[in-house]
Amino acid sequence: MTKQALVQNIREKQSFLCVGLDTDLTKIPHHLLAYQDPVFEFNKAVIDATKDLCVAYKPNLAFYESLGPKGWKSLEKTLEYIPENIFTIADAKRGDIGNTSKMYAKTFFEYMNFDAVTVAPYMGKDSITPFLEFDDKWVIVLGLTSNEGSADFQYLKDQDGRTLYDKVITKAQEWGNPNNLMYVVGATHPETFAEIRALAKDFFFLVPGVGAQGGDMNAVFKHGKNDDIGLLVNSSRDIIYAGNGLDFQEEIRRKAQQVQKSMNDLMA
Amino acid sequence: MTKQALVQNIREKQSFLCVGLDTDLTKIPHHLLAYQDPVFEFNKAVIDATKDLCVAYKPNLAFYESLGPKGWKSLEKTLEYIPENIFTIADAKRGDIGNTSKMYAKTFFEYMNFDAVTVAPYMGKDSITPFLEFDDKWVIVLGLTSNEGSADFQYLKDQDGRTLYDKVITKAQEWGNPNNLMYVVGATHPETFAEIRALAKDFFFLVPGVGAQGGDMNAVFKHGKNDDIGLLVNSSRDIIYAGNGLDFQEEIRRKAQQVQKSMNDLMA
Repeated sequence: MTKQALVQNIREKQSFLCVGLDTDLTKIPHHLLAYQDPVFEFNKAVIDATKDLCVAYKPNLAFYESLGPKGWKSLEKTLEYIPENIFTIADAKRGDIGNTSKMYAKTFFEYMNFDAVTVAPYMGKDSITPFLEFDDKWVIVLGLTSNEGSADFQYLKDQDGRTLYDKVITKAQEWGNPNNLMYVVGATHPETFAEIRALAKDFFFLVPGVGAQGGDMNAVFKHGKNDDIGLLVNSSRDIIYAGNGLDFQEEIRRKAQQVQKSMNDLMA
Repeated sequence: MTKQALVQNIREKQSFLCVGLDTDLTKIPHHLLAYQDPVFEFNKAVIDATKDLCVAYKPNLAFYESLGPKGWKSLEKTLEYIPENIFTIADAKRGDIGNTSKMYAKTFFEYMNFDAVTVAPYMGKDSITPFLEFDDKWVIVLGLTSNEGSADFQYLKDQDGRTLYDKVITKAQEWGNPNNLMYVVGATHPETFAEIRALAKDFFFLVPGVGAQGGDMNAVFKHGKNDDIGLLVNSSRDIIYAGNGLDFQEEIRRKAQQVQKSMNDLMA
């Protein structure tokens, strides 16, 4: 998907919501376990309930891998089921030497046809650039993550007083551009959003950490938006596990509507 | 596997060789493509040809994922085929927030029964500690990698002049110990081996980059060994693609014997 198409979807839907498909067999409504592929049944229900309210879906690969080959099949079916005009993100946090990253890129972009994949920057240039060689595909590099452990290394300051996340966000712009590169910037650090936006004015940020992890969407929007909105705010558990009875789909829709409504208000 | 068992295997086999199973359908001998599961047939041949010469196998997950659910099945069969007293490493370079890392740990340690998994440190403590909660299982944290891109961020110096890899290697010792934690230290930086060994005296290092990537095993051994040897030197392409005719298995064995012989000489 092009940046232009993504921005257009955001404007049309008045939403910059990304729904995280962290599908866990121990958390989905019990009655779905009777299906042959409960993971796919659940995802299908989530997609049906939210596809007019969100602009992106983000399956977290860990949840599918944990089920072995069956999980990969559920993931493939889910990908096929997502409407074509919705942005898809493989939350895989891969990153390896050049020839291996190339293989991951082919897997996620050609074999599975995701629009984007998340990548950890620790191994530098050749771990990231192989993902940039596909038309209208995106790499989403970890900048400042939403978890507690983000404090361990990402805030380290170099001899000029610049943090590691600053270096990563700046350096990656030598390799990609706002049409093929985004950053993960966690909502749990609202105080840094203005600073990070200044480092990467025209880039989209994928923002985890709103909801279950405690981040504040208003602060994120205020300090993080740009002329294209430039944000994909992810919510996983808060939306997909909003209910677990027979009416779970309505609960999911209700929760997603709430989030979309507050995005609509912010964008107004 | 315990550290004691690993060290004993190294002494008995006079080898600290890890064979990387980077199995690529475009590179394996053509005649194997007639089999129903060519990836597994090839791996089986590699294992049969090298199991008395090496102490570890390291499948690179990218190569299996690129084949979808079928690839995961080949990987599962390969894992089952590896003799129990050989250390197995999932070269996956995962790393995510706590609840996701926990899921990856379960996948690789419980579902697949690997001994170890490689993890990227960018996301800090909660991305690593979930892998430390399993008895006789290991996390192998990226320290200084072998690729060109390692220069982009890993050598960044903080205000006390300490590099990022130094910080990672030091900090991770607050979370794990020499019985459940190793580091990736690339053979392409032999000048740093003495420094890194001083930072982590009793820890094992998984050393990629000998062979195709140009690293020098003698220098690695000289500056990197400790009282337990403390090294697993990986070779992938150089060994597994040593031949591609009908006699490929003999070529693989010949190459692995050469490497084991030089390890034997170094250990003598």
